[in-house]
Amino acid sequence: MMKKILLLLFLPAMLHAQTRFREDTGEAIGILKTGAFNAITDVPRVKVGQVTLFSSSDIRTGVTAILPHDGNIFQQKVPAAVFVANGFGKMAGISQVNELGNLETPVVLTNTLSVAAGMEGLITYTLAQPGNEKVRSVNAVVGETNDGFLNDITGRHVRPEHVLQALKDAKTGKVDEGNVGAGTGTICFGWKGGIGTSSRVLPSKSGKYTVGVLVQTNFGGVLEIKGIPVGKNLGKYFLSDQLNDPADGSCLIVVATDAPLSHRNLERLAKRAWSALARVGGIASNGSGEYVLAFSTNEKVRIPHNQPGPTQTLEEVHNDAMSPLFLGAIEATEEAILNSLWAARTVSGKNGVSEELPREQVKKMLKR
Amino acid sequence: MMKKILLLLFLPAMLHAQTRFREDTGEAIGILKTGAFNAITDVPRVKVGQVTLFSSSDIRTGVTAILPHDGNIFQQKVPAAVFVANGFGKMAGISQVNELGNLETPVVLTNTLSVAAGMEGLITYTLAQPGNEKVRSVNAVVGETNDGFLNDITGRHVRPEHVLQALKDAKTGKVDEGNVGAGTGTICFGWKGGIGTSSRVLPSKSGKYTVGVLVQTNFGGVLEIKGIPVGKNLGKYFLSDQLNDPADGSCLIVVATDAPLSHRNLERLAKRAWSALARVGGIASNGSGEYVLAFSTNEKVRIPHNQPGPTQTLEEVHNDAMSPLFLGAIEATEEAILNSLWAARTVSGKNGVSEELPREQVKKMLKR
Amino acid sequence: MMKKILLLLFLPAMLHAQTRFREDTGEAIGILKTGAFNAITDVPRVKVGQVTLFSSSDIRTGVTAILPHDGNIFQQKVPAAVFVANGFGKMAGISQVNELGNLETPVVLTNTLSVAAGMEGLITYTLAQPGNEKVRSVNAVVGETNDGFLNDITGRHVRPEHVLQALKDAKTGKVDEGNVGAGTGTICFGWKGGIGTSSRVLPSKSGKYTVGVLVQTNFGGVLEIKGIPVGKNLGKYFLSDQLNDPADGSCLIVVATDAPLSHRNLERLAKRAWSALARVGGIASNGSGEYVLAFSTNEKVRIPHNQPGPTQTLEEVHNDAMSPLFLGAIEATEEAILNSLWAARTVSGKNGVSEELPREQVKKMLKR
Amino acid sequence: MMKKILLLLFLPAMLHAQTRFREDTGEAIGILKTGAFNAITDVPRVKVGQVTLFSSSDIRTGVTAILPHDGNIFQQKVPAAVFVANGFGKMAGISQVNELGNLETPVVLTNTLSVAAGMEGLITYTLAQPGNEKVRSVNAVVGETNDGFLNDITGRHVRPEHVLQALKDAKTGKVDEGNVGAGTGTICFGWKGGIGTSSRVLPSKSGKYTVGVLVQTNFGGVLEIKGIPVGKNLGKYFLSDQLNDPADGSCLIVVATDAPLSHRNLERLAKRAWSALARVGGIASNGSGEYVLAFSTNEKVRIPHNQPGPTQTLEEVHNDAMSPLFLGAIEATEEAILNSLWAARTVSGKNGVSEELPREQVKKMLKR
Repeated sequence: MMKKILLLLFLPAMLHAQTRFREDTGEAIGILKTGAFNAITDVPRVKVGQVTLFSSSDIRTGVTAILPHDGNIFQQKVPAAVFVANGFGKMAGISQVNELGNLETPVVLTNTLSVAAGMEGLITYTLAQPGNEKVRSVNAVVGETNDGFLNDITGRHVRPEHVLQALKDAKTGKVDEGNVGAGTGTICFGWKGGIGTSSRVLPSKSGKYTVGVLVQTNFGGVLEIKGIPVGKNLGKYFLSDQLNDPADGSCLIVVATDAPLSHRNLERLAKRAWSALARVGGIASNGSGEYVLAFSTNEKVRIPHNQPGPTQTLEEVHNDAMSPLFLGAIEATEEAILNSLWAARTVSGKNGVSEELPREQVKKMLKR
Repeated sequence: MMKKILLLLFLPAMLHAQTRFREDTGEAIGILKTGAFNAITDVPRVKVGQVTLFSSSDIRTGVTAILPHDGNIFQQKVPAAVFVANGFGKMAGISQVNELGNLETPVVLTNTLSVAAGMEGLITYTLAQPGNEKVRSVNAVVGETNDGFLNDITGRHVRPEHVLQALKDAKTGKVDEGNVGAGTGTICFGWKGGIGTSSRVLPSKSGKYTVGVLVQTNFGGVLEIKGIPVGKNLGKYFLSDQLNDPADGSCLIVVATDAPLSHRNLERLAKRAWSALARVGGIASNGSGEYVLAFSTNEKVRIPHNQPGPTQTLEEVHNDAMSPLFLGAIEATEEAILNSLWAARTVSGKNGVSEELPREQVKKMLKR
Repeated sequence: MMKKILLLLFLPAMLHAQTRFREDTGEAIGILKTGAFNAITDVPRVKVGQVTLFSSSDIRTGVTAILPHDGNIFQQKVPAAVFVANGFGKMAGISQVNELGNLETPVVLTNTLSVAAGMEGLITYTLAQPGNEKVRSVNAVVGETNDGFLNDITGRHVRPEHVLQALKDAKTGKVDEGNVGAGTGTICFGWKGGIGTSSRVLPSKSGKYTVGVLVQTNFGGVLEIKGIPVGKNLGKYFLSDQLNDPADGSCLIVVATDAPLSHRNLERLAKRAWSALARVGGIASNGSGEYVLAFSTNEKVRIPHNQPGPTQTLEEVHNDAMSPLFLGAIEATEEAILNSLWAARTVSGKNGVSEELPREQVKKMLKR
Repeated sequence: MMKKILLLLFLPAMLHAQTRFREDTGEAIGILKTGAFNAITDVPRVKVGQVTLFSSSDIRTGVTAILPHDGNIFQQKVPAAVFVANGFGKMAGISQVNELGNLETPVVLTNTLSVAAGMEGLITYTLAQPGNEKVRSVNAVVGETNDGFLNDITGRHVRPEHVLQALKDAKTGKVDEGNVGAGTGTICFGWKGGIGTSSRVLPSKSGKYTVGVLVQTNFGGVLEIKGIPVGKNLGKYFLSDQLNDPADGSCLIVVATDAPLSHRNLERLAKRAWSALARVGGIASNGSGEYVLAFSTNEKVRIPHNQPGPTQTLEEVHNDAMSPLFLGAIEATEEAILNSLWAARTVSGKNGVSEELPREQVKKMLKR
């Protein structure tokens, strides 16, 4: 059955050229420059792989996997932190990431009822890697949002095999956005949401570090774009009289950087990334699980699983030099959200239709 | 000496009629209605008292006190929570508020090096209240931001007497904003900041609760107002080439509501209020201590110091009904920040001059 | 294949009458009285179900399920909190329990690599319950410890079906201890550990509440029993010259009470329960994931999934009346750990043999 | 007036030779060796200074100051973390220590209503140090417990001058214990408590690091010493029929180590230290504020206030090598508590008499 599903995989995304906020509107977000791909993959070594499950029988879901490097992540862990902005969600692996300050698997995003499948996939992946023959404990990190409006979520169609496929397909460079992978069935501000990504490169005086962000957007509130009350103008917003939308749904955010950071400053970076949701009108409604995982790919903070002695030498950005990274994370997260909306396309599914954002109308508003 | 200082107290504020964002620009923030005063004092029973210390010898500081009700707060505690957004600050009383879930003194805001004076004032106030004769433990809650650019902060000019004066002067109704109380010497986005306040009233279907916010603005980033890049347009922003501003300074936020909430949901409310800083371009820079204290004035969650039996009956808003309150807190915090900028006026002090925001220029930008 | 495994299920436990610390040694722990069964099931409505997987092919693992009541837990949630004492572990469901303050599934304990199976089982259980037809989101709570020394853990032999079986078999009254359920393959202080349980009933002046505890012991340190240095006397302890034991492994603790508590005070209760590990010589070594989940079964704090209005009336124990509950949780946890050691029997498995505690020797030490 | 108080300073302590648990009973705690002084000062560079306020007019209080090194601490900060075990207390400086991961002042312990005086003293000390001329922000770290039974606590007799005196008097080597400094008026398990200290040195295979602990004991529960139910035997314990003791009061714990640790692992170390309270029968009662501050004196993790570039090179103990330090912290904390009880002597004060522990009786119990 998986085969049949996979046949349909990239059709929805391939039907159109990918539209991105910056290119389509001519508008920038913030003051910092983007990386070459304006994607999380601008952080050297980061890869993204996605499997989209889309079928005639109301399957609208998938897997998005982010790899911090292409070695053996269990043997060469990376510093990481999770900020739980609103814990109404099922993200797996949080406590160990925050206790030990590191990530030992790729990060997998999927739907709410498929976190277990995500974990099984990551465990299988890790146990099978050469060098991991003795491994008996794996902290699988899996985030989720609830795509149950469009997707037959209780069918639990994501299987461990899809995770393995996403990990295998992962690559650097351009990242597919919109109705793809874990974003296939998500809804954002009442419009079709999905996967989005963006990046920022700091100026030389701030260390030239790159911050890349990938989001799975499925949250709500009162949509604003560069201050334009888009949600209000289009009559679709939380608490509007026409709409009985609880603005729930969730948002998963992954932040990667090549700045040498350890857990404490990664958690601070994650917290700032979250604040970008408010910039587009997010309110972290009760039912919107919002989590940010941040990691550093810098080799000077890499954590070998087997340590030769009791201590390790590290090189870390000090507190005072963190602020430019904070700005970068906020800008990239805001633009990643907009990219998820720009790339997504109208989808019908289990409980109805989710329309794409009327980009042309919005572009006119932006030009006022 | 205090006398002489007090003589000068309200001069700076009185030199001009108070300007507020909404009235001056004709622009609203968000979709919800404000309360009668558009102030934290729209929450029934909440009072604000302020003492401004301003002298020819570079004293530019003060005290702002917020009272949740006008009874004996130690004997009739209110549910409360503190969200520490960026803990680079000296706020006192946090751990007890979060452990016990309540507030047993008024909230005092002042400058960084005067937290101890704030505590002394609150302890004296509490010990002296009728009914508190046996009290031997007081959890004084004091927030601060650093006004050391304009103010002779190391002189530690705030004294416990000023706290007692602010508490005595506290009143409902209109709240002074800008260069007043704890906002006398603060700077926000490179312009003169200060005290600001705003409120929101929920629609009937959401319980008609009021959320009121008071801020002490002293933080930075890249100022945006309703999406207009004011900071960039005026050439004053974090990481700009002309400016070597670390965007540090801090922001204290106090959220009051008459919705019956206990600690857990008050902490969630506080977290949302913080996210409003990002809406105006705040980045929570490394040196910007950002704290939000939220409390409920509702009598059905009031906590008597002496309990008759082992249990107490409460009435609480459940999780699902929190989202409109979240929206209210975000909107009110954003407008309170703008009010602090609109009310503040140019001040010279110890290390130079802090200019007020060029409101007329900004109003033109808003009208584009 | 599952059938064959199930055939062997209760053999190891049935080979001997169950030995309990208090009965066997004549010694009490602490000053409070136990409940009728001296078990977590002394808390009215709490049920425990266990499935033991034990086969000739090195399967030494299982499932222990704890149900807070026998209704539909998703529709009638109970207040709950998780205290993460040492987050090196994979417990699922933590963030939602702590954000929303409640538990909406039974609690499942199993081995480290079977958390996903535990989640699948709980999701299937919940989706299938009458009344849950519209449910699209389930926060499955699954704890684990690593039984990989005795058990073929990478074989991932626990399946969702085993979880369903444990839930179906759950009952009030006597609880099996030692090598049973999730304790089948665990090791504690270098001796065979397992499942243990105990309870305390508060005196009338403290509200007559019951606190019940169930533990899955798999941790280490320097074993002490009532102050007797058992580990040192027997030459088996962390940092001993003969032993190269990192004292890792983990401990999961579940605390139930009929006292009406909400999240904040349940988290405080959970924290105290954890401190009991130190009383028997636990050190929370780096690799010992230690988590405590506490919940209240009291109907006055029950949380209906569908709320009629925006608020709910609750009755809660106030802060000042918590201390006797704290004492009860500590005593019950200490005795539950000892019960796990007393009930466990020598087992050989994948990587060698784990001996049971030499109870007769220890009893002599206790009598000196 | 301060002069007169100071004249009486060390009288109570000098009336008797100091008794220590290990020397007096011949019993060891745990399996690790102590340092040369069996004191926090065994950690190289750590100094302790104490000022005791004891007068005929019911003043029974004081100041205990701990310095991590004898340089300028503001300019050469040390990594630090605070674990809040039970936040019913007024400890100052927590949020900044945990946000920035460091300590920039000495640690001061005093009574509950004198935290503000402690802060003033530390601020004055810091501003006055050569090299700190430009300092405008100081994170004063002050812990407290409530000595209001013996001490005229509402008189707020501790003044900033006493803090300065304690800092000036600080020295390495032997540390006074019992009724001294911040322990002058404290009560522990119903007996006279006070200041206590102890240390552990790790074996060579674990890095030979030293862990030193200093406690201010003012908490309760059901006293046990090496498993002997001392509290029960002497009829003085929480919930005993004769006693209406809420077991409240608090405990402050300071942990120093020369192991190179940063914030995250220091917080973990602090958590373990707290668990030692349970070993002697502590229950962290509702009213017992329990806080642990841990810091590292190792020069390879020292944090200069002014950083030359954006990054810093550090050497840190990795997670896997932490467990021996955890054991050391637990053992030293347990013995420090016993030392506080052994050194303390009967005192009468404002509300009655606090008897010292009947050591001879307890010694007989220990010899059973």
